[in-house]
Amino acid sequence: MNIAILFGGSSFEHEISIVSAITVKKVLKKANLSFIFVDSNREFYLIDAKNMKSNYFSDGAYKKAKKLVLKKGAFCTIGMMGLKEQSLGTILNLIHGRDGEDGKIASLLEFNGLSYISPRVDASVLSYNKLYTKLYAESIGVKVVPYSVLNSNDSRDIEIEYPVIIKPVRLGSSIGVSIVKSQDELDYALDVAFEFDNQVLIEPFIEGVLEYNQAGCKTSKFELSIVEEPNKEEFLDFEKKYLDFSRDGDVEDATISSELKLSIQESFKKVYGTLFEGAIIRCDFFVVDGEVLLNEINPIPGSMANYLFEDFESMVERLVEHLPKESDIKIDYSYINSIQSAKGGKRQ
Amino acid sequence: MNIAILFGGSSFEHEISIVSAITVKKVLKKANLSFIFVDSNREFYLIDAKNMKSNYFSDGAYKKAKKLVLKKGAFCTIGMMGLKEQSLGTILNLIHGRDGEDGKIASLLEFNGLSYISPRVDASVLSYNKLYTKLYAESIGVKVVPYSVLNSNDSRDIEIEYPVIIKPVRLGSSIGVSIVKSQDELDYALDVAFEFDNQVLIEPFIEGVLEYNQAGCKTSKFELSIVEEPNKEEFLDFEKKYLDFSRDGDVEDATISSELKLSIQESFKKVYGTLFEGAIIRCDFFVVDGEVLLNEINPIPGSMANYLFEDFESMVERLVEHLPKESDIKIDYSYINSIQSAKGGKRQ
Repeated sequence: MNIAILFGGSSFEHEISIVSAITVKKVLKKANLSFIFVDSNREFYLIDAKNMKSNYFSDGAYKKAKKLVLKKGAFCTIGMMGLKEQSLGTILNLIHGRDGEDGKIASLLEFNGLSYISPRVDASVLSYNKLYTKLYAESIGVKVVPYSVLNSNDSRDIEIEYPVIIKPVRLGSSIGVSIVKSQDELDYALDVAFEFDNQVLIEPFIEGVLEYNQAGCKTSKFELSIVEEPNKEEFLDFEKKYLDFSRDGDVEDATISSELKLSIQESFKKVYGTLFEGAIIRCDFFVVDGEVLLNEINPIPGSMANYLFEDFESMVERLVEHLPKESDIKIDYSYINSIQSAKGGKRQ
Repeated sequence: MNIAILFGGSSFEHEISIVSAITVKKVLKKANLSFIFVDSNREFYLIDAKNMKSNYFSDGAYKKAKKLVLKKGAFCTIGMMGLKEQSLGTILNLIHGRDGEDGKIASLLEFNGLSYISPRVDASVLSYNKLYTKLYAESIGVKVVPYSVLNSNDSRDIEIEYPVIIKPVRLGSSIGVSIVKSQDELDYALDVAFEFDNQVLIEPFIEGVLEYNQAGCKTSKFELSIVEEPNKEEFLDFEKKYLDFSRDGDVEDATISSELKLSIQESFKKVYGTLFEGAIIRCDFFVVDGEVLLNEINPIPGSMANYLFEDFESMVERLVEHLPKESDIKIDYSYINSIQSAKGGKRQ
């Protein structure tokens, strides 16, 4: 299996993506791996496996690596004789946050006809924006945590039952997120959130809520991970979340009833649907009064949530064989030809 | 004003886009224009103004034009000495349907830092998919035509009050759309629609419904076109729709009450919001029992709906000065540096 890990990006999670890529490199033991780094300026670099260490990027040494450009069919190096196509295999989009999760990278790869593991452009847009995620989930009959929306130019004179959690509608890894326990903390929390986005979600903050993560993908059938009960401590701590992205160890299956497990799995499958085909995603669910509510979709989870799967590498191999393909559109110029022929073929 | 018209694309509306581009070329009289053609294989070509005639494309003559590749900062020609950047100005995305309206072209331009007139990636995804358009409109308090959703693998044994209109959720220009008057026509209409998409919308078909189009954009303020009452005949006829894309003549303002006009304008502004900043769009509204309902958003209308504006070219000039800009994300490697320094600087 030839896999090119694409990482970095112009994203608040740029550094997280580097950690993620280094971790996935360790996990994919049998694959023939390449590494494509997107620097903060959005230039592509082909990175030698031996240089996949975090300070190769942080100290700028990567700038000596070969630059790549993406054109129809392939990433290419630029030489004296023009562009030279690189056969790098299937691209694994491991750019967290902007570029990777907002649909831009998916669009670049789709447009240029590369084979790639990633949510497609529509799946990206719907999961990158937490408001759109809610609208999508509700439209397919998956319950969500209740919410209200506030725009940066809306009045802040609002009725809220505290505590609440404030989230910018975009961005991951808890950036700009605050728990607000009383009215006098609200303004500051909104200021912080509006630093990152012009629209925020306000949700009830449920102390000690039961939270479960389910990852998976669809190959010839659904392939689901164990259900994880995440460590609550890391909920809002960016540094701890960060460390989470380098996980490659074992996790225990949550000790929950088989009914609840089934209900979580069914909710995951509904969310994944056909929309997320081609991607390995993680859904974070809350359980409130026995009901499974979708909290968030992680369309590109840290280190691809590899630690939740029994045999991650084999699953990736199967996924590579089951990636969605765009339909062909045949363009035969029948309309223009018929107009031309009616006009006697004079060029116009 | 330097404008590069981007047209063609791997789209069912490829030929329409050529017609649109030729029309906009005529309309933008003062601008310094360039032309970038995306052929059916998604290769970019720089087209001479004198070759902007429909059969230059239909007979394949365009293949002798200079190929372009898109890289960070610019479209480039490929020469013996590497890539040569072309200064083409602001890109006007005039690719209808797939590629242009589904977010891919917006992503390519945004990622590479080009200035461009087009719906951005999220606006594209929400307007390209008619179901997502409904969800978005409802979320901002804009009423829509009632609908139900059917997936290709759902049972067709459904209760419907006829007549209905069946639409694939994606695609424009009435492709795959049917009016169904009775149960025995349903199966065929669904077969046709599912040829183009795996999800369809079913809406009541309202004979002789009042229909009004409003186009516009946001510069320093909203700039709205006249309200057009479209010719009903062209509703479902692909060839007539086609001709519509070459319009550059005058249209009359609809003869409606000032209250209704205001109501249409307000609905347009709500839909446009901040989501469509950077784009010139056209919204198609129905008026039923005095209520304004959003029917569809045309994120890249035929020939940019130029014929609905009093001074289209001046408006484009102002829009070029008011295009949204991505926020800067500073990447300082503070996390990796702090980890490295804790480890004594050993590379890992």
